[in-house]
Amino acid sequence: MQYSNMTKEELETLLLQLEADYRAFKAKELTLNMARGKPSVDQLDLSMGMMDILSSESDLTCEDGTDCRNYGVLDGLPEAKQLLGDMMEVPADNIIIYGNSSLNVMYDTVSRSMTHGVLGSTPWCKLDKVKFLCPVPGYDRHFAITQYFGIEMITVPMTKDGPDMDMVEKLVSEDDSVKGIWCVPKYSNPQGYSYSDETVRRFAHLKPKAKDFRIYWDNAYTIHHLYDDDQDYLLEILDECRKAGNPDMVYKFASTSKISFPGSGIAAIAASHNNLDDIRRQLGIQTIGHDKVNQLRHVRFFKNIEGMNEHMRRHADILRPKFEKVLEILENELGGLGIGEWTKPKGGYFISFDSLPGCAKAIVARAKKAGVIMTGAGATYPYGIDPEDSNIRIAPSYPSISDLETATKLFALCVKIESANKILSEK
Amino acid sequence: MQYSNMTKEELETLLLQLEADYRAFKAKELTLNMARGKPSVDQLDLSMGMMDILSSESDLTCEDGTDCRNYGVLDGLPEAKQLLGDMMEVPADNIIIYGNSSLNVMYDTVSRSMTHGVLGSTPWCKLDKVKFLCPVPGYDRHFAITQYFGIEMITVPMTKDGPDMDMVEKLVSEDDSVKGIWCVPKYSNPQGYSYSDETVRRFAHLKPKAKDFRIYWDNAYTIHHLYDDDQDYLLEILDECRKAGNPDMVYKFASTSKISFPGSGIAAIAASHNNLDDIRRQLGIQTIGHDKVNQLRHVRFFKNIEGMNEHMRRHADILRPKFEKVLEILENELGGLGIGEWTKPKGGYFISFDSLPGCAKAIVARAKKAGVIMTGAGATYPYGIDPEDSNIRIAPSYPSISDLETATKLFALCVKIESANKILSEK
Repeated sequence: MQYSNMTKEELETLLLQLEADYRAFKAKELTLNMARGKPSVDQLDLSMGMMDILSSESDLTCEDGTDCRNYGVLDGLPEAKQLLGDMMEVPADNIIIYGNSSLNVMYDTVSRSMTHGVLGSTPWCKLDKVKFLCPVPGYDRHFAITQYFGIEMITVPMTKDGPDMDMVEKLVSEDDSVKGIWCVPKYSNPQGYSYSDETVRRFAHLKPKAKDFRIYWDNAYTIHHLYDDDQDYLLEILDECRKAGNPDMVYKFASTSKISFPGSGIAAIAASHNNLDDIRRQLGIQTIGHDKVNQLRHVRFFKNIEGMNEHMRRHADILRPKFEKVLEILENELGGLGIGEWTKPKGGYFISFDSLPGCAKAIVARAKKAGVIMTGAGATYPYGIDPEDSNIRIAPSYPSISDLETATKLFALCVKIESANKILSEK
Repeated sequence: MQYSNMTKEELETLLLQLEADYRAFKAKELTLNMARGKPSVDQLDLSMGMMDILSSESDLTCEDGTDCRNYGVLDGLPEAKQLLGDMMEVPADNIIIYGNSSLNVMYDTVSRSMTHGVLGSTPWCKLDKVKFLCPVPGYDRHFAITQYFGIEMITVPMTKDGPDMDMVEKLVSEDDSVKGIWCVPKYSNPQGYSYSDETVRRFAHLKPKAKDFRIYWDNAYTIHHLYDDDQDYLLEILDECRKAGNPDMVYKFASTSKISFPGSGIAAIAASHNNLDDIRRQLGIQTIGHDKVNQLRHVRFFKNIEGMNEHMRRHADILRPKFEKVLEILENELGGLGIGEWTKPKGGYFISFDSLPGCAKAIVARAKKAGVIMTGAGATYPYGIDPEDSNIRIAPSYPSISDLETATKLFALCVKIESANKILSEK
């Protein structure tokens, strides 16, 4: 029975029971965490072979004869560019390999635009106003970068097909202070939505008023499927932009953080040759080169994209039951009650939950009091402010299945209590 | 006999012989490189044990229980902070460990100051004029960073005791647009000079007009001695600044690039807690953390500072004969001729050579024509302009001893020819 159809008395009786259940949870003194998209220990173990792949007997010379142990090679090793090019579905020569984190690459990209502009444009720090579009709900660390640089963030609602493109097209074409948009186009963070072909094509055909407008295409989950036989496909944006006559309009980011080791992987940017040349002018000042030994370690471990895809199947085997367990519990506990909706992704790292308006903060706070840490309510919105106070990001990857079961049941219970409270208060 | 005391005829006769010698060198079709401070293959081999130090059987948990394979730890592993703290002669909690390159840390430090200021000061990009002091000759990649950000560079002459401190004190105290000074205080690049105690104390007691003035103390060669029994000592600048009541005035940089592997080492900044907190506010936006597995690899390989010092003795055993060979040839070929002076460092990576004014470019060009690449003349000055056209940086580390012998003889011959040409033209 939907909570909204219950009488005041029914709700009060229900609440008594729910609060008793909650006290029982609290008594367990749980310390569980569903906050961040961290791989589990089992997943990390999958890549331990990488520790043996180079030894003191290894020849650390790469394909073109470079000794990977010494200075140099700004762009990355040819074989690493090939591997990450295949992963990112672009030619190797549209790639620059960076250090250990794509977040850092995105930060540096915004930072460079602030101080030096984009392909010769006015540095953004010299402008009165710079704006970014932020599809919501979205990734808190994206929003943190733009906030840090004083860039005004304009929210654009997400749909199952991607951002509201009518709104994106209008904002981008009318306002030359709009310089960028944050996108997680595949298995989006937090909803797990993948942009439709039409959305990608509309992105590629944008007619930005600002010449230095760029799409920040964070393809973090490009090969991070949960199912072998039921995967999302995403049109390749560099190619679509090229075909649309907008070859320079996009930066594409990715890393192996959730493939090998978070923090000890390799990251890359993919872009047009014009953009890459612009980037190299800065990169050659910033560094003599990134960690080539780690690039070599990755290439020799994965061998090629087939090896990487096979490796991702093993990740999926660990992640899939966790997602399914969370979804099963949400359905069992909350299905048909009319107090929440959630996404059912086929990949990525998150499930997005929408509570009744005004309940998210209270739900997360209540879960925390019983020892279950969720991503802070509001984190999926710029400035941490969810105007509806309803979106909550669930990260099923890190806990064990049994911990996840406990945590999700507790979470569902908190949803019930706060929803009942809300509905009661409105009766 | 000094060239300047020779008659026109004597010089002309000499030149005929020198040019015959030069033609003989050219006929050898050499391809030798004394341009960059790159470790040799022998030196890189010293660290190959690092490839075995972690295996698929290893526990990659660090001292405080953190799984180094997963996200997190912005500051660096405690044991890595200890090791690099010992190396940099500061407490571990005055350290943040970065990625693979201290150059990148310096770039990021300037970049952050441009966009966000220093400890709350006006961002430099909002100022009409920002200036850095550049002791010369100095390190070209330092100058490239400040040039890239449009920072005006003011040269300050180096002495055997460090930069001309009368000039530094005057410029820093009178002009609030002077925001920094580049220093390589120990075994300086390119001269191999180490700052005297008095110089370090005068640095610590600077009274900058700009509150956001910082000393960029690039202690790249802190343990990079050539001799066990004859080493330079450098006063520790953080402590001196603290004692002088200027605790926040210095950033200290270092890395293991020339200890383990260039490009695959670990870098660090050392600074006051105020400065580190300021840095962390940015760093937490830029990254989730640097490569902890590589930090762990370094700590487990070197174990502690004693292990690192022992390792540096093995580097010295390879480098010392190379420096001595270059110095021996310079002395044999050029001693007493009055056509050049050079430094005799006890550590670091370079020997600095000063030709007669106006000859450096010609010498380097002539060496290049015969197949020996030197660092470009002028590179040791901001904007690549050596007003005297006399300084040449010699990097003896990379070639084999026999190649070095050939290259240095050719270099000395080029010095002789260009000097004779110059003196002749003035007769």
